Amino acid sequence: MKLKHFSEAEELEVTDYGSTETTIRWLVSREKEGAPRFAMRRFELKPGGQIGIHGHPQEHEIYVLSGEGKVFTHFEKHEVKKDDVLYVPPDEPHGYENTGKENLVFLCIIPYLD
Amino acid sequence: MKLKHFSEAEELEVTDYGSTETTIRWLVSREKEGAPRFAMRRFELKPGGQIGIHGHPQEHEIYVLSGEGKVFTHFEKHEVKKDDVLYVPPDEPHGYENTGKENLVFLCIIPYLD
Repeated sequence: MKLKHFSEAEELEVTDYGSTETTIRWLVSREKEGAPRFAMRRFELKPGGQIGIHGHPQEHEIYVLSGEGKVFTHFEKHEVKKDDVLYVPPDEPHGYENTGKENLVFLCIIPYLD
Repeated sequence: MKLKHFSEAEELEVTDYGSTETTIRWLVSREKEGAPRFAMRRFELKPGGQIGIHGHPQEHEIYVLSGEGKVFTHFEKHEVKKDDVLYVPPDEPHGYENTGKENLVFLCIIPYLD
């Protein structure tokens, strides 16, 4: 088994899809840990930060660790907070924004499709 | 997308592998949400609780939400605490115990292999 603290994973800026004030850490990946089928990432959005709406064939399974914000598609918008769980099915465009005063932090698991 | 608070998922006792004082909630699953490739579960071990050592071909990706405890294989034992990340590869027998005074809570993501 491989064990680490989340902070040992490099923190990278996210700028795709017009995203702002957002970072990602790849906590478990194929490249680093040899995980064959899916990867665990940890996103952190500063207050006012957002990830612009985007879509892809990979589904997401998300757990909110702290903070509060909104998740949205082209058709709906929901408030999310600590300990909420979100499932985004394949090919459903989605985005996130931090509407609170603390950082919005969540785990997002995504499959490798090859 | 499908959104819920973790507590909306049914809490079930875990008794496999000689486990004690342990519950599981299936937060995202194929059965409920239609997730095609992997499932997110939330385990909670009361102080002194444990999940006995066991193995299977599915890997685990684990994030510790709160508490402290130990994870072990037949050959090693490690302390874990809040915000630690654990990768258990396929077919590596593993177990857990809560050695702290608070509940040990972690997310564990597991693939569907069919």
